Amino acid sequence: MTLKLIIGNKAYSSWSMRGWLACKQSGLHFEELTVPLYNDGWDERKREEDIAPSSGKVPILWDGEAVIWDSLAILEYLADKVGRERFWPKDEVARGMARSMAAEMHSGFLPLRRACPMNLRKVYEGVTISDETRNDALRILGLWAEARARFGNEGPYLFGTYSAADIMYAPIVTRFVTYGFTLPGFAEAYVDAVLAHPWMEEWYQAAQNEEWVIEKFEIEPSK
Amino acid sequence: MTLKLIIGNKAYSSWSMRGWLACKQSGLHFEELTVPLYNDGWDERKREEDIAPSSGKVPILWDGEAVIWDSLAILEYLADKVGRERFWPKDEVARGMARSMAAEMHSGFLPLRRACPMNLRKVYEGVTISDETRNDALRILGLWAEARARFGNEGPYLFGTYSAADIMYAPIVTRFVTYGFTLPGFAEAYVDAVLAHPWMEEWYQAAQNEEWVIEKFEIEPSK
Repeated sequence: MTLKLIIGNKAYSSWSMRGWLACKQSGLHFEELTVPLYNDGWDERKREEDIAPSSGKVPILWDGEAVIWDSLAILEYLADKVGRERFWPKDEVARGMARSMAAEMHSGFLPLRRACPMNLRKVYEGVTISDETRNDALRILGLWAEARARFGNEGPYLFGTYSAADIMYAPIVTRFVTYGFTLPGFAEAYVDAVLAHPWMEEWYQAAQNEEWVIEKFEIEPSK
Repeated sequence: MTLKLIIGNKAYSSWSMRGWLACKQSGLHFEELTVPLYNDGWDERKREEDIAPSSGKVPILWDGEAVIWDSLAILEYLADKVGRERFWPKDEVARGMARSMAAEMHSGFLPLRRACPMNLRKVYEGVTISDETRNDALRILGLWAEARARFGNEGPYLFGTYSAADIMYAPIVTRFVTYGFTLPGFAEAYVDAVLAHPWMEEWYQAAQNEEWVIEKFEIEPSK
């Protein structure tokens, strides 16, 4: 039974990106089913509720009779199937931090997520960032710095090798680029590493080529 | 090395309840460290940010060098230590649903959480529920109904035996009681089973006896 992953626009759906990267990380074969969002406006929450079953959000993973409708749950479900070590650090202390970071991303950073919706087809200049959005960014940079410094010796990613933590923060990487955040050197290096990952390059390429997105539709960041 | 769990008020801190129940479910010995919240007002988010390190929230689990600062991450970290079967259904289809339900609780139901903050020392009558709060409650009841009907044959809990899903929804059970929600029969039976669980009885008892809570302080639900 082939896994099926339902996702939204690759250009805009940050949670879809996480679910898709998790499927890639599992090493299992999966089919993608894309549902069009945002063809008539920029209201992520509303549009996703219109089209997806269950909680009204994408991504959704189908595995035979099993239906998993949240990106972090998809990641854990796949880790159950292929082994935890493929997704999470082996070291218990590192894993405790990686799990906490993933969970904080899952439930938090609402100001940043609202002010800077993911958009892989745009780079904005001169965006004004509110204090609460800046606080989110600073918190994220602090977490990245700690993970890189304590556990990142064996590779360019947060915990060295590519892990669930990188998957969860991948859309943040794209937001920092799209909205022109000025980053410290270690964070620039991490952003470059994430963007150069082959799966990320594949996703970006597909995001540029999504044909059913209305090209004339101008998206302005909310602030 | 003894596990240490930092929690807030047992009467009010819903995320602390989840972390504490997860520690109980692990079967491991742990010490509790309580930090007082809400001694001068009812603003959960603000007060928690004042007192807790890391993301500014309780609970936090300390396991030697490991620090885990989110309730779902604590649950998964403990499952890593003692075995997944202690927390999640064995059946893959059931586990996929349980993981999705836990994740949806972790990041969602904000209207219900904001309108009906947990308060184990009060029962309100005649509370007016907004449409979006009602929608959250209906979504939760739908999830409970499906879990009970499909996977709940072997016990009174969502997936039969007590699991991570029950831990994540335990504070919802208390909110339904505190704010006087009228529930269908199957949900009443589930609420009764959750409240009768010995760990829940222990927590409730402690919540009634928290001495440093200012007794004259009247908490009104926000609506």
